[in-house]
Amino acid sequence: MISNKTNKAWCLKKRPEGDIGIDDLELVEKDIPSISENEILAKTIYFSLDPTNRIWMSDIDQYMEPVEIGDIMRAGGSLAVVEESNVAHINPGDIVQGGMHGGWQEYFIIPGDEATAIPMIDGLSMTAFLSILGFTGPTAYFGFLDIGKPQPDETVVVSAAAGAVGSIVCQLAKIKGCRVVGIAGSDDKCNWLKDDLNVDEVINYKKENVLESLKEKCPNGIDIYFENVGGEILDSALTLMNNFGRIPVCGLISMYNDWDNPGPKMFRNILMKRLTVKGFLVSDYLERYAESLDALGNWMAEGKIQYRVDVVKGIENAPETVNKLFTGENSGKLLIQVSDEPKD
Amino acid sequence: MISNKTNKAWCLKKRPEGDIGIDDLELVEKDIPSISENEILAKTIYFSLDPTNRIWMSDIDQYMEPVEIGDIMRAGGSLAVVEESNVAHINPGDIVQGGMHGGWQEYFIIPGDEATAIPMIDGLSMTAFLSILGFTGPTAYFGFLDIGKPQPDETVVVSAAAGAVGSIVCQLAKIKGCRVVGIAGSDDKCNWLKDDLNVDEVINYKKENVLESLKEKCPNGIDIYFENVGGEILDSALTLMNNFGRIPVCGLISMYNDWDNPGPKMFRNILMKRLTVKGFLVSDYLERYAESLDALGNWMAEGKIQYRVDVVKGIENAPETVNKLFTGENSGKLLIQVSDEPKD
Repeated sequence: MISNKTNKAWCLKKRPEGDIGIDDLELVEKDIPSISENEILAKTIYFSLDPTNRIWMSDIDQYMEPVEIGDIMRAGGSLAVVEESNVAHINPGDIVQGGMHGGWQEYFIIPGDEATAIPMIDGLSMTAFLSILGFTGPTAYFGFLDIGKPQPDETVVVSAAAGAVGSIVCQLAKIKGCRVVGIAGSDDKCNWLKDDLNVDEVINYKKENVLESLKEKCPNGIDIYFENVGGEILDSALTLMNNFGRIPVCGLISMYNDWDNPGPKMFRNILMKRLTVKGFLVSDYLERYAESLDALGNWMAEGKIQYRVDVVKGIENAPETVNKLFTGENSGKLLIQVSDEPKD
Repeated sequence: MISNKTNKAWCLKKRPEGDIGIDDLELVEKDIPSISENEILAKTIYFSLDPTNRIWMSDIDQYMEPVEIGDIMRAGGSLAVVEESNVAHINPGDIVQGGMHGGWQEYFIIPGDEATAIPMIDGLSMTAFLSILGFTGPTAYFGFLDIGKPQPDETVVVSAAAGAVGSIVCQLAKIKGCRVVGIAGSDDKCNWLKDDLNVDEVINYKKENVLESLKEKCPNGIDIYFENVGGEILDSALTLMNNFGRIPVCGLISMYNDWDNPGPKMFRNILMKRLTVKGFLVSDYLERYAESLDALGNWMAEGKIQYRVDVVKGIENAPETVNKLFTGENSGKLLIQVSDEPKD
């Protein structure tokens, strides 16, 4: 039934120092696992590449266990097609989420009680379930709305604004009547933000002095800074925060390759401006997941939210591709396509 | 009627670099102001010395205007006796709060509509109205209870634990059934915390490695870190915070003499541990002031809260004395006594 003879999987060979090196990971050919009672065998179609992959590769104290040396690299999400099923409610050909069972590999087993077939929706690409309707949409939704608590006419600054989460935050901010300033790393991204997503002002951090540009583009200060990056951009935003401003901390990508970075010098403004700085993970909001998907789905149907997916084909390209997140080369949600989507 | 011929006042001569120098301030003899209709003339008995005095002396962006060069030094609070009154509801001999009208000076005017006589209470020293029932009690109350949101059995770490605010926070934490670890700068202070305030564990930061001691004394991690100091102690606490921990930021005193300090290296744990870090000023809670005084008064009556006041006599000693806050020489609320308390 299965044509491949092996299960190709990327395993962590050693912990990266700085950027992820090609030799930090190893493409291993493993046996395809055999399923037992109440299990299904899934074949990966897509898996997600995320900044947090870099966190999991390091052994700092973090929000879950790091990936151990020799283990298959964990993925933030994956979509797979069912190859074999010993579970009554799941049939071969069904599309399922990989959850924590997927990873950077071709085949994996899901326990029957954790598998749910995803209904395909006309006009909606399958990749939506790994982006806007996977984790990135809900991440933006809970971080921005719950922690950011946006009010009409407030000034919102979003870093990594053309990224998978940032681009949704920008659009949520417009929906909530805010003035939005997006920070991104190329003119192309900035143009997309301005022209397609109607972001009010953009800053290309690779060309501009971010602090000076923020001063100019936020004449009334910053009420919400949606934090994806850390480093100097965080310091610049802290400098210009208004009293009672909110900073949802979603990511600190500029720090992931070098944890010896100093912290933000303008930390004092948390006191001076009485800011609320709050870290979060989308997994903290699992109970309210349906609420977010509902709202995001409605806004998509109304044409108020767009999303971008950046698909790179071939499991062999994963280690090189994940670095695009750190150099800023990708735009929108970054996915590796491991196998073809099944034909209808 | 007034025996003194002049109003002695400390004016800011230049902005300090590092510690406050004696020549950064100048003791000026001004005329005693004359009151107009609906004003009262008040004679300072006590004024408060606070870490924030150092902030007001610098010209960084801060939570209110800095004190201008040449202006009378602002005080966080003062108590004064009414010398002359053109206001119906205030009589000579009444005790009043100086509010923003007092300062490091002997005499000042209060507009009638801002003056309220303080009722003296048997068994309660007047200085309570500049400490536990002035600003420090409510600061501890709102910061710890509203932002900290303590739960029974949680581990609470308090920096500057023997200070005016910190010592109240320690006691509130015990009232709420928490396990409390206090960090202070002398064995005397540590003994006071343990023996008199029933703090569970103490750390003398001048003798101990704070990170190592915290690891030992917080075997279940830290749920609430009440922040008064910044610097390495903040970094140590951040390192050991539990998921969903809370950090009320009340002060960052170790940074006030050198704003070029780097920020906390462990800032990343705000993300990893999904912390809430929130700065606050007691003045943000003015509307709920009565609630806090009520609660604090009841706990005092029940013997559950004690407070310490450190009184230094003589207005001439103010600049030298304020530095005690930064060297850690004082314990409890630091006040300058300018004139005698009136006899009954």
